Amino acid sequence: MKDISPTVTTGPLPASRRVWHKGMLHPEIRIPMREIDVHPSAGEPPVTVYDSSGPYTDPRADIAIESGLPRLREGWLAARGDTHAYDGRHVKPEDNGFAEGKRLVPEFPVRHQPRRARDGKAVTQMAYARAGIVTPEMEFVAIRENLGRKAAKQALMRDGESFGAEIPDFITPEFVRDEVAKGRAIIPANINHPEAEPMAIGRSFLVKINANIGNSAVTSSMAEEAEKMVWATRWGADTVMDLSTGRNIHNIRDWIIRNSPVPIGTVPLYQALEKVGGIAEDLSWEVFRDTLIEQAEQGVDYFTIHAGVRLHMIPMTVGRVTGIVSRGGSIMAKWCLHHHRESFLYEHFDEICDIARAYDVSFSLGDGLRPGSIADANDEAQFAELETLGELTQIAWAKDCQVMIEGPGHVPMHKIKANMDKQLATCGEAPFYTLGPLTTDIAPGYDHITSGIGAAMIGWFGTAMLCYVTPKEHLGLPDRDDVKTGVITYKIAAHAADLAKGHPAARIRDDALSRARFEFRWEDQFNLSLDPETARSMHDETLPKEAHKVAHFCSMCGPKFCSMRISHDIRAEAQKEGMAKMAEKFREGGALYLPLESEEEA
Amino acid sequence: MKDISPTVTTGPLPASRRVWHKGMLHPEIRIPMREIDVHPSAGEPPVTVYDSSGPYTDPRADIAIESGLPRLREGWLAARGDTHAYDGRHVKPEDNGFAEGKRLVPEFPVRHQPRRARDGKAVTQMAYARAGIVTPEMEFVAIRENLGRKAAKQALMRDGESFGAEIPDFITPEFVRDEVAKGRAIIPANINHPEAEPMAIGRSFLVKINANIGNSAVTSSMAEEAEKMVWATRWGADTVMDLSTGRNIHNIRDWIIRNSPVPIGTVPLYQALEKVGGIAEDLSWEVFRDTLIEQAEQGVDYFTIHAGVRLHMIPMTVGRVTGIVSRGGSIMAKWCLHHHRESFLYEHFDEICDIARAYDVSFSLGDGLRPGSIADANDEAQFAELETLGELTQIAWAKDCQVMIEGPGHVPMHKIKANMDKQLATCGEAPFYTLGPLTTDIAPGYDHITSGIGAAMIGWFGTAMLCYVTPKEHLGLPDRDDVKTGVITYKIAAHAADLAKGHPAARIRDDALSRARFEFRWEDQFNLSLDPETARSMHDETLPKEAHKVAHFCSMCGPKFCSMRISHDIRAEAQKEGMAKMAEKFREGGALYLPLESEEEA
Repeated sequence: MKDISPTVTTGPLPASRRVWHKGMLHPEIRIPMREIDVHPSAGEPPVTVYDSSGPYTDPRADIAIESGLPRLREGWLAARGDTHAYDGRHVKPEDNGFAEGKRLVPEFPVRHQPRRARDGKAVTQMAYARAGIVTPEMEFVAIRENLGRKAAKQALMRDGESFGAEIPDFITPEFVRDEVAKGRAIIPANINHPEAEPMAIGRSFLVKINANIGNSAVTSSMAEEAEKMVWATRWGADTVMDLSTGRNIHNIRDWIIRNSPVPIGTVPLYQALEKVGGIAEDLSWEVFRDTLIEQAEQGVDYFTIHAGVRLHMIPMTVGRVTGIVSRGGSIMAKWCLHHHRESFLYEHFDEICDIARAYDVSFSLGDGLRPGSIADANDEAQFAELETLGELTQIAWAKDCQVMIEGPGHVPMHKIKANMDKQLATCGEAPFYTLGPLTTDIAPGYDHITSGIGAAMIGWFGTAMLCYVTPKEHLGLPDRDDVKTGVITYKIAAHAADLAKGHPAARIRDDALSRARFEFRWEDQFNLSLDPETARSMHDETLPKEAHKVAHFCSMCGPKFCSMRISHDIRAEAQKEGMAKMAEKFREGGALYLPLESEEEA
Repeated sequence: MKDISPTVTTGPLPASRRVWHKGMLHPEIRIPMREIDVHPSAGEPPVTVYDSSGPYTDPRADIAIESGLPRLREGWLAARGDTHAYDGRHVKPEDNGFAEGKRLVPEFPVRHQPRRARDGKAVTQMAYARAGIVTPEMEFVAIRENLGRKAAKQALMRDGESFGAEIPDFITPEFVRDEVAKGRAIIPANINHPEAEPMAIGRSFLVKINANIGNSAVTSSMAEEAEKMVWATRWGADTVMDLSTGRNIHNIRDWIIRNSPVPIGTVPLYQALEKVGGIAEDLSWEVFRDTLIEQAEQGVDYFTIHAGVRLHMIPMTVGRVTGIVSRGGSIMAKWCLHHHRESFLYEHFDEICDIARAYDVSFSLGDGLRPGSIADANDEAQFAELETLGELTQIAWAKDCQVMIEGPGHVPMHKIKANMDKQLATCGEAPFYTLGPLTTDIAPGYDHITSGIGAAMIGWFGTAMLCYVTPKEHLGLPDRDDVKTGVITYKIAAHAADLAKGHPAARIRDDALSRARFEFRWEDQFNLSLDPETARSMHDETLPKEAHKVAHFCSMCGPKFCSMRISHDIRAEAQKEGMAKMAEKFREGGALYLPLESEEEA
């Protein structure tokens, strides 16, 4: 195996430690967080931040890609007693695009029997939530979202505009249960992916981000994809979508899921299409159904299903500037058109739900008709599909399936809020999961930025998860650097949204970093930032010496002009002089200040 | 001279041509624009875009840095007959920080006599506008803002939310005059900088961006700064601020201004402080006044004046997380505190206006108390200063001086709009000019992005010019690459704002690029983008062959999955099948479609 094993990035981030909080309702659970130490001179406790990186950043963890991660949730699932292991579907040659010999990516070395629900039961977090059960997953999420803060006796100082999202001072397991029961949040957690650390997607919680990875017919390998997954979560990806479209899809996915600490999403249609040789019109419900089971058994946590693309909507796209830009949407449109039939995804959605509820695969109802340009934003086709997604949400909820809704795309700023408002109204407050949106079309190469603007705004308005866009969008497949740039950009957008929504834990990190900045604690500034490596290397480009890490100035102004330093002088003088009293005199009128003798001496 | 002459980047952008439109009121004026050609197969006219790059992108122009740019406005100024040339102030050793010998940057080789107003007249664009005079500068701006479009007989289709900004379908010279007369727009155009191409800053016009350059005591040289100026305007900077703080400030500025096609702004306080050896308390009105005249004679187009920082406000900053982060603000605070006196800038503001009106130097009233962290946003100190800036605006307007107002800083998204609303109300709709704002503090190394989000939003809300922030903000001095990244990011923010405001010319470029994308005209996609070089190189990383430039797919999906290609198939089938008719049948209900014999044959 050695020669094909992917190597992945491990080790802690600077000054950081992975720490664990214990459950109360479920004392057996341990919830990971990251603590960032600050310099002793600050006299401040470490800063606790959300940690999506899994065991890879824990030097005590024994990482062996060939074995996969520890199966964290296995005991929790067994304790529920409502699932059973079974033989599962046999892997077929078409699952890997008929790759053979050297071209076949090896199977993942450890085989686990898949589990599914007994007797047609729903084993979804939503089913439990509705039954009043607070699962370990729910408590895990509650503690994780609080970032280690304790329930405050008094109401916290709050500052923000949440546009109707319910953001409590302290998140209880019961609050999580209630949000999941109402369908306002999901915990994507396939029973066959027990390695993942539970997380929630919902607008009452911290805004999450997704990173897309995946090989294509043209480029990239399994080793690269496994590393991209680890790399993306290291920098903060909360979920990862595997959008592979080439050969070896099945085996690559196994390697990814077995080693992923975050939920994995897919678009099963891509693999189904590979199985029929890439001919959209040859797709059938049978092939698609088989693919759903294949992927559910592997442990995919959420499926993008483009069931909202219906035959009558296709003509609405004909006059568009950029037609249908969603791959799934265009495949289904082609199928519908060729057969002159309603989409098999729409017609069989009920059966799709039956599969999903047996494994707790969440739905990400795909926006197959999302706008691909500013010109097409908020058009008839887009909103017609959204209405259908609302219908499908009700069907899924009736089966206790967890649902989120995918959103655009390319949308100018003044049309963003309408998307959020319409989604909330149409889809019963199911979580919204948007790609960007991109706020202009004119900057290929910088679409992480064109879309980061839209993402921050729609995140503030209520989008629960933001799908990243990398600089290579529209131009090529992202490499490792692009993945990092995309993730950091979207962490910025998500965090800016958390701040604006008034999430009680959001500002702690900003304030800690700003204090470090004001006090010239350079190392703390780097360590508290989203990307310590880049911050440090940019600083060192101009002022490389170690001595400059403790310098009370920086290269922008040099020592003489430093405003921060002057501010410190002012603060010191203020303490000496009794500024408040002095200010009082000046508050009225602008007359020249003539100090009194007595004050001069004070 | 040869060995010290800076070399700057010249040559057209890909597929681009500098073209000229002629004035009507002033037939002698020629207004530059850039036309980007598209592939003949598109059957589309070239796309006209705003061009801030000056003659450097025109292969026919004779560029000689030692001579400076042609003095475009010299004739216009002479024709007005209200200014006269005079000997001007002698350059003093302290103007260049006492640099001598080899350390002294050579003087600019060509010396022009400075001009100033005759007989205490106001020679500002505002004075002319109020007198009902449409200057060549105003007509230049009107034609430039229209991007070559003609007055439409019928009202244009408009789409946007301008928050009260008045954005006409077509901008007439009279409209420009009226906006300048009202103080809602400025045309920064010092009579001693006749090389610059007039431009307007105001919320009725396209959103502009500023790039900061400048050496510091720690790093960077004259050659670098001249190239940074040319480089910044090449990518779209509408104005450039020279924030130099080291030695040689005077001589470097001469090289920059004589070669700058865009207005140059400065913070005269920085140079004044150098003249008193960097000791804030040694500053005096006399040194400052002398510096204003020095810089006005050189041709600085706008001065940042921190006259809003008043003694009684300083205590308001003591409890802040990051104190005073504006250099100018902290210098003045220190001065006030040391002397226990009101700021000499505030007390002498009337005299400052007298200097500005004699040269038409516009004011950028500095936000010396802007927040330097999320924690300090929208606080008492910040808004107290803004009130004073409102007062000062009235004083400047009474003297016919042009004014814009500087704004923050670090502001979370939910507090951005309040800044804009308060600025409009307090400062009589004088143009707002903001730095970012940065929407979170936690991403040093990515502050072009944290601030690009805020910039796009505040630009939409009505900010007239956005001051760029580079990735190096808080960490070091920007190099050439950082300048480009900052400029492109801010062009994105400004353009996204123009789209959202509903500027009639804004969407043309988006639509042209999106059509190119849909039709796989890869070269057109690159050429129409803000940064063709980056777009092309990212594409070529994955698909380097020339053949792939005409490929009807890309590396993201490969040929089989290409949604764009499928969309074309759908469009073709739609034309064949009569989709609208077919769709009609499907609009009601989801029943299985059974085609009629006659339609099958249609």
